[in-house]
Amino acid sequence: MKLYDGGKAPNPRRTRVFLAEKGITVPTEQVDIMAQEHKTADFTAKNPLQRVPVLDDGTCISESIAICRYFEALRPEPPLFGQGALEAAMVEMWNRRAELNFLFIVAHAFRHLHPVMKDLEVPQIPEWGEANKPRAVDFLRIVDRELADREFIAGDRYTVADITTMVGYDFLKVAKIAVPDELQNVRRWHAAVSARPSARA
Amino acid sequence: MKLYDGGKAPNPRRTRVFLAEKGITVPTEQVDIMAQEHKTADFTAKNPLQRVPVLDDGTCISESIAICRYFEALRPEPPLFGQGALEAAMVEMWNRRAELNFLFIVAHAFRHLHPVMKDLEVPQIPEWGEANKPRAVDFLRIVDRELADREFIAGDRYTVADITTMVGYDFLKVAKIAVPDELQNVRRWHAAVSARPSARA
Repeated sequence: MKLYDGGKAPNPRRTRVFLAEKGITVPTEQVDIMAQEHKTADFTAKNPLQRVPVLDDGTCISESIAICRYFEALRPEPPLFGQGALEAAMVEMWNRRAELNFLFIVAHAFRHLHPVMKDLEVPQIPEWGEANKPRAVDFLRIVDRELADREFIAGDRYTVADITTMVGYDFLKVAKIAVPDELQNVRRWHAAVSARPSARA
Repeated sequence: MKLYDGGKAPNPRRTRVFLAEKGITVPTEQVDIMAQEHKTADFTAKNPLQRVPVLDDGTCISESIAICRYFEALRPEPPLFGQGALEAAMVEMWNRRAELNFLFIVAHAFRHLHPVMKDLEVPQIPEWGEANKPRAVDFLRIVDRELADREFIAGDRYTVADITTMVGYDFLKVAKIAVPDELQNVRRWHAAVSARPSARA
């Protein structure tokens, strides 16, 4: 088993945090995205979509969350995708909300505005990048209201939805998006999840 | 139990096709997106993200795939998310590939270019819409190569990944994206999944 990892990029970090929460160690090889190593013929054979991370366990599995689900099945404890029909649905709902309305939104702002991305995001469309910035903050306002009544994003325990939201939150800085001071519940939650050893992954 | 459905929009259709494949009937109420009924205070209380579909089963569950997973847990047969760690990971991988590199891409092309969306997608950015059109076709080229060796998107049986890809494919027309004639494996697959009774949902 080998994990093809992607350094500072947010999606590979999701998988690393997940593995740290599970206490799983996997032999890892770094793929240098800035050097476009994910676009070589060798890597394309592992993932025709040319994205990291990829887990090679005989079969190549790509997409961060597919890799996480694979490990959840191999080692169910602690449960990070919820247990039982309703909790699993709530975790899936919040993880997807956090992706579609936050992590991917922050990524669009970064990819379409930051000069370092000019050779990777073609064409860069600054107007699209700017359109996404306020949407990321809109999502945090919704989450702030939700976190008035509970500790974690999807309910009373830490799940993959916290991982996705934390990774998106930590990506705000490089995307030059500020968190409004009044979002105290979000700030409390972010301090708590960032204090976990897995956050250093 | 009640399903708040969204007419012709692609995400609500995913849930309807999934329920048809499971043989599940749920009392349904239509939410008129063009009339912005998904932005009323009543509907916002069901989903603060203001999107359809929403399943109210005591708790409100939103996100099409979260609703599908909920029904998969309640009625596991036929399995549409895969069985066992590896098949489930492959289904998750392909469903996500089909969303991130196809369905959502086609949706961006539609939302940013079609005049009917001018009050719902603000600001419309035509350059972003155009940038997505060739990406949708790029994905179909990859899928065409994969389907040379197998019947369905994620493997040898019909899964939620076929539903996502079919819904994206059927949305190409309204987004004014043409499928190249040479993609014969994709065309064969599309004819097969479209012949299933669930495709009429």
